[in-house]
Amino acid sequence: MRILVINGPNLNLLGTREPEIYGAKTLETIMQELCIEATTLGCKVETYQSNHEGDLIDQIQRARAGSFAGIIINPGGYTHTSIALRDAISGVGLATVEVHLSNIHAREEFRHNSYIAPVAIGQIAGFGPYGYTMALSALKKYLDSRDGK
Amino acid sequence: MRILVINGPNLNLLGTREPEIYGAKTLETIMQELCIEATTLGCKVETYQSNHEGDLIDQIQRARAGSFAGIIINPGGYTHTSIALRDAISGVGLATVEVHLSNIHAREEFRHNSYIAPVAIGQIAGFGPYGYTMALSALKKYLDSRDGK
Amino acid sequence: MRILVINGPNLNLLGTREPEIYGAKTLETIMQELCIEATTLGCKVETYQSNHEGDLIDQIQRARAGSFAGIIINPGGYTHTSIALRDAISGVGLATVEVHLSNIHAREEFRHNSYIAPVAIGQIAGFGPYGYTMALSALKKYLDSRDGK
Amino acid sequence: MRILVINGPNLNLLGTREPEIYGAKTLETIMQELCIEATTLGCKVETYQSNHEGDLIDQIQRARAGSFAGIIINPGGYTHTSIALRDAISGVGLATVEVHLSNIHAREEFRHNSYIAPVAIGQIAGFGPYGYTMALSALKKYLDSRDGK
Amino acid sequence: MRILVINGPNLNLLGTREPEIYGAKTLETIMQELCIEATTLGCKVETYQSNHEGDLIDQIQRARAGSFAGIIINPGGYTHTSIALRDAISGVGLATVEVHLSNIHAREEFRHNSYIAPVAIGQIAGFGPYGYTMALSALKKYLDSRDGK
Amino acid sequence: MRILVINGPNLNLLGTREPEIYGAKTLETIMQELCIEATTLGCKVETYQSNHEGDLIDQIQRARAGSFAGIIINPGGYTHTSIALRDAISGVGLATVEVHLSNIHAREEFRHNSYIAPVAIGQIAGFGPYGYTMALSALKKYLDSRDGK
Amino acid sequence: MRILVINGPNLNLLGTREPEIYGAKTLETIMQELCIEATTLGCKVETYQSNHEGDLIDQIQRARAGSFAGIIINPGGYTHTSIALRDAISGVGLATVEVHLSNIHAREEFRHNSYIAPVAIGQIAGFGPYGYTMALSALKKYLDSRDGK
Amino acid sequence: MRILVINGPNLNLLGTREPEIYGAKTLETIMQELCIEATTLGCKVETYQSNHEGDLIDQIQRARAGSFAGIIINPGGYTHTSIALRDAISGVGLATVEVHLSNIHAREEFRHNSYIAPVAIGQIAGFGPYGYTMALSALKKYLDSRDGK
Amino acid sequence: MRILVINGPNLNLLGTREPEIYGAKTLETIMQELCIEATTLGCKVETYQSNHEGDLIDQIQRARAGSFAGIIINPGGYTHTSIALRDAISGVGLATVEVHLSNIHAREEFRHNSYIAPVAIGQIAGFGPYGYTMALSALKKYLDSRDGK
Amino acid sequence: MRILVINGPNLNLLGTREPEIYGAKTLETIMQELCIEATTLGCKVETYQSNHEGDLIDQIQRARAGSFAGIIINPGGYTHTSIALRDAISGVGLATVEVHLSNIHAREEFRHNSYIAPVAIGQIAGFGPYGYTMALSALKKYLDSRDGK
Amino acid sequence: MRILVINGPNLNLLGTREPEIYGAKTLETIMQELCIEATTLGCKVETYQSNHEGDLIDQIQRARAGSFAGIIINPGGYTHTSIALRDAISGVGLATVEVHLSNIHAREEFRHNSYIAPVAIGQIAGFGPYGYTMALSALKKYLDSRDGK
Amino acid sequence: MRILVINGPNLNLLGTREPEIYGAKTLETIMQELCIEATTLGCKVETYQSNHEGDLIDQIQRARAGSFAGIIINPGGYTHTSIALRDAISGVGLATVEVHLSNIHAREEFRHNSYIAPVAIGQIAGFGPYGYTMALSALKKYLDSRDGK
Repeated sequence: MRILVINGPNLNLLGTREPEIYGAKTLETIMQELCIEATTLGCKVETYQSNHEGDLIDQIQRARAGSFAGIIINPGGYTHTSIALRDAISGVGLATVEVHLSNIHAREEFRHNSYIAPVAIGQIAGFGPYGYTMALSALKKYLDSRDGK
Repeated sequence: MRILVINGPNLNLLGTREPEIYGAKTLETIMQELCIEATTLGCKVETYQSNHEGDLIDQIQRARAGSFAGIIINPGGYTHTSIALRDAISGVGLATVEVHLSNIHAREEFRHNSYIAPVAIGQIAGFGPYGYTMALSALKKYLDSRDGK
Repeated sequence: MRILVINGPNLNLLGTREPEIYGAKTLETIMQELCIEATTLGCKVETYQSNHEGDLIDQIQRARAGSFAGIIINPGGYTHTSIALRDAISGVGLATVEVHLSNIHAREEFRHNSYIAPVAIGQIAGFGPYGYTMALSALKKYLDSRDGK
Repeated sequence: MRILVINGPNLNLLGTREPEIYGAKTLETIMQELCIEATTLGCKVETYQSNHEGDLIDQIQRARAGSFAGIIINPGGYTHTSIALRDAISGVGLATVEVHLSNIHAREEFRHNSYIAPVAIGQIAGFGPYGYTMALSALKKYLDSRDGK
Repeated sequence: MRILVINGPNLNLLGTREPEIYGAKTLETIMQELCIEATTLGCKVETYQSNHEGDLIDQIQRARAGSFAGIIINPGGYTHTSIALRDAISGVGLATVEVHLSNIHAREEFRHNSYIAPVAIGQIAGFGPYGYTMALSALKKYLDSRDGK
Repeated sequence: MRILVINGPNLNLLGTREPEIYGAKTLETIMQELCIEATTLGCKVETYQSNHEGDLIDQIQRARAGSFAGIIINPGGYTHTSIALRDAISGVGLATVEVHLSNIHAREEFRHNSYIAPVAIGQIAGFGPYGYTMALSALKKYLDSRDGK
Repeated sequence: MRILVINGPNLNLLGTREPEIYGAKTLETIMQELCIEATTLGCKVETYQSNHEGDLIDQIQRARAGSFAGIIINPGGYTHTSIALRDAISGVGLATVEVHLSNIHAREEFRHNSYIAPVAIGQIAGFGPYGYTMALSALKKYLDSRDGK
Repeated sequence: MRILVINGPNLNLLGTREPEIYGAKTLETIMQELCIEATTLGCKVETYQSNHEGDLIDQIQRARAGSFAGIIINPGGYTHTSIALRDAISGVGLATVEVHLSNIHAREEFRHNSYIAPVAIGQIAGFGPYGYTMALSALKKYLDSRDGK
Repeated sequence: MRILVINGPNLNLLGTREPEIYGAKTLETIMQELCIEATTLGCKVETYQSNHEGDLIDQIQRARAGSFAGIIINPGGYTHTSIALRDAISGVGLATVEVHLSNIHAREEFRHNSYIAPVAIGQIAGFGPYGYTMALSALKKYLDSRDGK
Repeated sequence: MRILVINGPNLNLLGTREPEIYGAKTLETIMQELCIEATTLGCKVETYQSNHEGDLIDQIQRARAGSFAGIIINPGGYTHTSIALRDAISGVGLATVEVHLSNIHAREEFRHNSYIAPVAIGQIAGFGPYGYTMALSALKKYLDSRDGK
Repeated sequence: MRILVINGPNLNLLGTREPEIYGAKTLETIMQELCIEATTLGCKVETYQSNHEGDLIDQIQRARAGSFAGIIINPGGYTHTSIALRDAISGVGLATVEVHLSNIHAREEFRHNSYIAPVAIGQIAGFGPYGYTMALSALKKYLDSRDGK
Repeated sequence: MRILVINGPNLNLLGTREPEIYGAKTLETIMQELCIEATTLGCKVETYQSNHEGDLIDQIQRARAGSFAGIIINPGGYTHTSIALRDAISGVGLATVEVHLSNIHAREEFRHNSYIAPVAIGQIAGFGPYGYTMALSALKKYLDSRDGK
């Protein structure tokens, strides 16, 4: 079971950017740790990051071609503005979990709405890097349950 | 480390209500399973359910008096309407995680806003009963990290 | 065929409150007369009143357990603010008729919206105590028709 | 005591249109049955249907000239858009009851508002053809009570 | 110079309807007096009333064919809802003055907007029947000025 | 295969009205040319125009009785205000194409919304008289495809 | 019978400002001509202009002290923003007519609302300098009628 | 003269909760001091606190039965959400003063609106515990004045 | 301790204006009585009234130069429209209490918002002239407390 | 005459994605068929697809450099969010037709607005792949007419 | 070339007010330095400050009479509320540059809109006192360019 | 001191696009002239343009890595829609000035809001190419001041 983890704009800045808020871990470290956890869960994680909306859409489309079982996505700032990203997710029909490092519902009004949420299984927000681990086990659980495991 | 799990209105209907949607597990079963998981995490869960907004507030206030380390709350329909509940949470100052069985962001417009979210650590929505497990491990993680464990 | 009639906040003030507007009948009298009419329709009415949102939810939940065939509800001020009440009604799945003494659509803007209406069979507003009689015969008619009588 | 029953646009399609939703009765049948019920109530019903906003207004104006005691109106799609119809009702000053076959409050947002409701005694919505019977007995009750019967 | 005076829905009720508000004069009398005043101004007034939006549009279109120099219109309730009426006025391109008996800006919020005003020379509201006289002299003045008289 | 082409308010002014914008062709000419094109497509077009909302509704209802295969409608100003017209189209259940001469989405805000669009197959706007030809071939295509031709 | 004519901000620019729009007449000329017309109507006009909101309020208050029978006011840009001006008019209780040179309902959205209109007898907009003459005769008519002349 | 002082949700947390903001006084102390001040004003204060909306409504209803002359209420978070509470106050018809410890108009947007204010004599916000004293003397003043003392 | 009491537009009309509503006391009398009460509180009140927004701002600025300890302001109609007034208050940094004679939250929607409230200590509304007394004692209390008295 | 056909995000999924909705044709097939139709119309079509907003803008800019006579664009999800795309179209000044496979006006509210429509000749929505053919003949017609053919 | 620099309400507080935010320079110093810079640019600056909206309007009107080539205005709090000020600027037709010390777009929502901007050449916000220098050189550049220098 | 100047979508069209509006200078020329001015100011400018949102974000991120002292950005159409761009700027923490050639506040409503402004030092709009010069000197001034030069 292969899972694609997609990170959107500015998440590549993690670690070097406002570490007192986002922690000292780089995205690379977070993703590596997630890969290890994936192994213990019996699945395989591949990761991707881009600041380009189009790249994220391309990648989601490739996920289907590449036989991924599901997607974990942190769409960053595109969460609130990208209908194209939403259409990509509903278009490929893969089970998707939405993750946010910060609690978007506790921030500016324009961060409360997510165009992605209505086409995702669920949303996790506010738990920092640990949110990816939560997403992974939730997605694994969902897929196992769906497939009658 | 003791955690209070609070369930709001109509969650006591779980299992007997629309089982094709919400699953066949009753709230009692879900909470019992959560208690077991808590033990493996090295903490203790106590649970409470009420359909009364005032009872939920009373219970949150007692959580502080009762030396609970944190709160997991599924405020049900009060999520979107109760400023009093929000004030209770910010008033007691305990770390709180918000859980929803369904993906509230994929439902009616009036279920998108949460008065609770801005005073919670984070929000988990759409993962069914498993959301409580996610909330518990996230809260445990948060408290350990905060306490320098 | 047993019908539960639920009255929300401040309806217990009827008769003693602004009688020039609401008439001189107390809620007790109105309910008693409704019980008599129920007998002529071949069904049985039980009544409940509370100012507590949680009590109304508890009562709706008990209606299912208590084998009621349907519910007549005047949610009073909770009509416009209670998503929890709405969820209770859709949760128990009993046929429900919504009644208002006054014509809520002719009053303040904030009384025009009803969270209850979308989960009820229909809404009756503006006909005073007679609205309960209308609701009863409409609910009876609906249940008979549904049950193929 | 003569009552004018006015039906607005597309109600003439009843019976032949989506019978699984609206039932197999034509408007003609529904109105005939209403006339019979009127007789048992000791009043006389005359009916009118038009798809023309102007015709409905003309008819309301004639109701006063024709010594009708009150009006039952199902304004169809004009409910939500016609200030002119509202002005006609308030202009003639006859007691008016508003009826809708479907539960307009459970449908599209734009069907929730009624320009007619604020000038009517009350509104009945969601009870199908039986709504006319309810309206008739409510209007009869209102007129008897107003006239001190 | 011929002027067409168009009166919309419910204005035919004037005189017999709420005379304490609208005065005891019928529309017929008001229009007759306007005709006399027109003569003193050196122009000729023809009048039309209908409760039908379509009739009002037809009449506006005929105004051009009939070589009228301008239009005075009291669109009644259609003022706030009829884009079709507006399009008729801008379509025929005749100078048009909008009149309202009551001060629409002092009434319900939904009477504040006029779809007609942006295609009219100007608007007169709140001066009762005298508003027609004002409109006539203003329109006469406008036409004389435009035609270089 | 017979198609009914319905034109709403003020479209009868075409040709004589602002020809620099709408072109020099009258509605009569446009409709005649459409009839010829219909023949080459192997179907028959009948046309209707009225400034009356009620007439348009009547005509739509007659389309079903008259065994028309589909409707092409340019609802003019009623596009943005008539729920009754929308209900007529959904009521008769005939395949309908919506046409606008001008690009309504490039004009005033209040012309952007169409009550008709959600019950039509599709919408064509901005292509002048040629829009009818487009609508006709699109409707023909749709009907052929639906009927398995 | 003395009438106070109050002109608000920027009206002192008339004549020298964009004469192709506002005409070549200065405010002085317009007011002088109005004074002459007043004489023929048997009343006396005094005029005042200021760019200061506070001055306009002061002047309205003095109108009562100075035994004016009524006020004609063109509040200019303060029309849409000054609640204080509105309160002054309702505070002194003098009959007031609101005049605008341009058709404010055909201009920017923010010019459509008038805080003054709800406390005025009526509003005249779009007739240029002639609007003052209209206002004067309407006010005269109103006062005569009110005083039983 | 007996006055009922009602405190809503979370006010029981005063003193132990964020004392740097709300001060070190408990609600108990504040109420005791208010009782003493009442004595000097020649009236008697009874106090009540609950986190339950229904309890607050019950208590307001009992105030009339219990012959209280007036009510001082701090509705806490229910201020902005409870129409039922508002209806209770208007239902019993007792003179009511609304108090808030904090300046609600300087806080989040959703705390600016009060459903209670339109049925209260007046509102006092931002003066901490001293607001109760202000409310008491204002209510006393109002009642004395109303009763012609 | 010197306090500046500032009254905004139309408050100079008190006493002579609608005395049945605002009472028979003139602003002069109210202010004189306030001065006497100030003496008993051990402080000194100076008063100012103007209908001019600019004058009110000037006066607020002078308050700082003049060593006033605090400000009591009834901004009248400017409450809801003047950002400049708000900026003056926050600019001088003096403790300010906002007073309204009427209960602005029970009046027109546009009177509910106050630009002043967020920069004031608190707001008092609905208690007539007595509101000034309340404001004075609250301001005195606040200043004493702040200064550690 | 060369026409550039631009397809936005997720349109490359056609055929393999939800074929019961979008049909079994791939975008490649649809574009090939369009090329053939173009030949019969005497023009030449070149096609482009990208999921990248920036690529679409680049391509529009190249259209001018490449001497294209016009553009047909299906902007997919960018229709509702991209001001940059709109600016590109208005910047190059080429005649543009907007196409949508689905009837966007019958879908979610956020799909009703198009930033592209105001800078396009017209919009075609709801006719599936055939919409491209309609767009091509409409654009051809427009260009011929503009160029006096 | 003479330039008028107009400063609105509360700008006279600069230097003595919150110097840590606005700097230690008084408005007088800033204006004096601007005068010197003007000399080096070959133009002459005259400055004006008032807290009165009416004074600012008067001054703008005098600018035209006084042969000023252009205006630099910092309208302070009137930026967001004064249509009268806007009308003055468009009325005199002088080239105008709008300056704000703070970045108004980064502050409260109600400071984002400017009634002045649409009648100004451009807007400069957020650069403190240096904004005046920027405005001066931009205005000089604009005027030189316009006059073909 | 190195400054990065970033230009967003469609700015590469400058010079060849609507030169009567935007002038005859290409972006290349404008940037070259800015480089020269930078030299006289003692700093060095590097420039970048892209139509791709993602490229702009990449470039902003590189600015920090590349030891740029600050950023000047004209985000074009992304100004109003890109939260991702905003997050990039706040993420890198470099001093940023926002420039617009046109006066965005005088154009369509949807161009008034800037997601960039709240994370920039300030905004300059409406001064054409000269705006870049203004931005450069303002940014230089800001950086010198911040660094205590």
